[in-house]
Amino acid sequence: MTVFKFHRALTVRVNDLNYGNHVGHQNFFSYFQEARVAYLSQFGYSELDLGGCGMILAEAGCKYKQALFLNDKVRVACAVSELKAKRFTMAYQIERDESVCAEGFTINLGFDYQTNRVVRLPEAFIGRIKAFEGL
Amino acid sequence: MTVFKFHRALTVRVNDLNYGNHVGHQNFFSYFQEARVAYLSQFGYSELDLGGCGMILAEAGCKYKQALFLNDKVRVACAVSELKAKRFTMAYQIERDESVCAEGFTINLGFDYQTNRVVRLPEAFIGRIKAFEGL
Amino acid sequence: MTVFKFHRALTVRVNDLNYGNHVGHQNFFSYFQEARVAYLSQFGYSELDLGGCGMILAEAGCKYKQALFLNDKVRVACAVSELKAKRFTMAYQIERDESVCAEGFTINLGFDYQTNRVVRLPEAFIGRIKAFEGL
Amino acid sequence: MTVFKFHRALTVRVNDLNYGNHVGHQNFFSYFQEARVAYLSQFGYSELDLGGCGMILAEAGCKYKQALFLNDKVRVACAVSELKAKRFTMAYQIERDESVCAEGFTINLGFDYQTNRVVRLPEAFIGRIKAFEGL
Repeated sequence: MTVFKFHRALTVRVNDLNYGNHVGHQNFFSYFQEARVAYLSQFGYSELDLGGCGMILAEAGCKYKQALFLNDKVRVACAVSELKAKRFTMAYQIERDESVCAEGFTINLGFDYQTNRVVRLPEAFIGRIKAFEGL
Repeated sequence: MTVFKFHRALTVRVNDLNYGNHVGHQNFFSYFQEARVAYLSQFGYSELDLGGCGMILAEAGCKYKQALFLNDKVRVACAVSELKAKRFTMAYQIERDESVCAEGFTINLGFDYQTNRVVRLPEAFIGRIKAFEGL
Repeated sequence: MTVFKFHRALTVRVNDLNYGNHVGHQNFFSYFQEARVAYLSQFGYSELDLGGCGMILAEAGCKYKQALFLNDKVRVACAVSELKAKRFTMAYQIERDESVCAEGFTINLGFDYQTNRVVRLPEAFIGRIKAFEGL
Repeated sequence: MTVFKFHRALTVRVNDLNYGNHVGHQNFFSYFQEARVAYLSQFGYSELDLGGCGMILAEAGCKYKQALFLNDKVRVACAVSELKAKRFTMAYQIERDESVCAEGFTINLGFDYQTNRVVRLPEAFIGRIKAFEGL
């Protein structure tokens, strides 16, 4: 089971709502991304710069447990749960009060945006994330 | 393997692009939704009205194979691949020219928006979809 | 000149960025809306319920002065600057640190969503807003 | 009065709808942008490359006349209505069947994204647009 050491607080905005008057299911992935970007920036990284290459998504998934509504204050928990030479998996959880509203993951590949190729993740990146997560 | 009998044509819009100048990964789910809604409307249904109840998402996933860019003309293929008393799974494929750019799925639950409860899918809905898909 | 008594703090999200890597110009209107909804909720109102009718937009405009970037912390100032029997004008200002990044307005009509007609604004609504704004 | 020589056809998508179940007012500006980008691409230009510099928005406005709904087929008319050394104004109109649903404009500045400065529009750009519009 993933232990989350990083959280990002968000408040649901009007613009996140869909025609069903709750947060559209695709916006859960935007919330994950918001947390992912904040997580990476702890280490001075961004999606486009992991210290030598960028990243690109290979896969994403989400299990929806509870709907989210306007002005809900949520915490998006985020962790790297697995780390290989060319890819890392991130796990996410959206929490409101004490309950989990959604769980998700993304598989992220090291990517060189100049050559458009999947590449090895930088050693420094791997080292820092492993140290932070205790992997 | 899913056989797709339904397709929805879409052209990538400026507003679908993210800060990486390609279609944001969450928008692939919007493309799936666009196809899902068109698929349902063939039978006179919508996400909010499957002929007796609405639907809600329990899970969604996507595997990304190729990036999508401005003005790309894509086909979003869509099928119901499994159908149970209270839930149905839909499979999606985003195609550009002859290649598959993404594959995805959603698990959709029958849902009563009055009582906020998961409910059985209407018999007529099940019958029509089974007939269409040959399930 | 409009005096702003109400502000809403926002942080620029990844998903607000466009393919130019700054906040897309249409999202400035989303920020205005975010402030508008919060402003109305002070009085227990929402865009769909001003205490007897809803509202609908007749016009919107924005002057862009400075670009907004990821993680920028902004304040969206918001005020009702004019109030008539069937319409009210709201003024907005997006501020970052000490500088104004954008100024905008919307003209909002009282609207009955049952009959789809423009209607007079409720007396109580008019009274509360006038009192708050000193109009 | 603006004569429109350019149109872009669009179909309203699910994702364009807001919590009021019609196209969100900010998405009218996205429709304008869609038309603007297509207009520019007629001449081989884009918002980021007008043949020597890019463009940036100084102002945008929209008058809303009719709501837009799912699957509505609209035409977004678009024209350059005024052209000066450093700026040009574009007019837009969203049409459904024979009626005008919205009218808008944007004021666009020549912009050098390297130096972040407003610059003169390229002569070739000015020449082509004037010839096309008969300005």
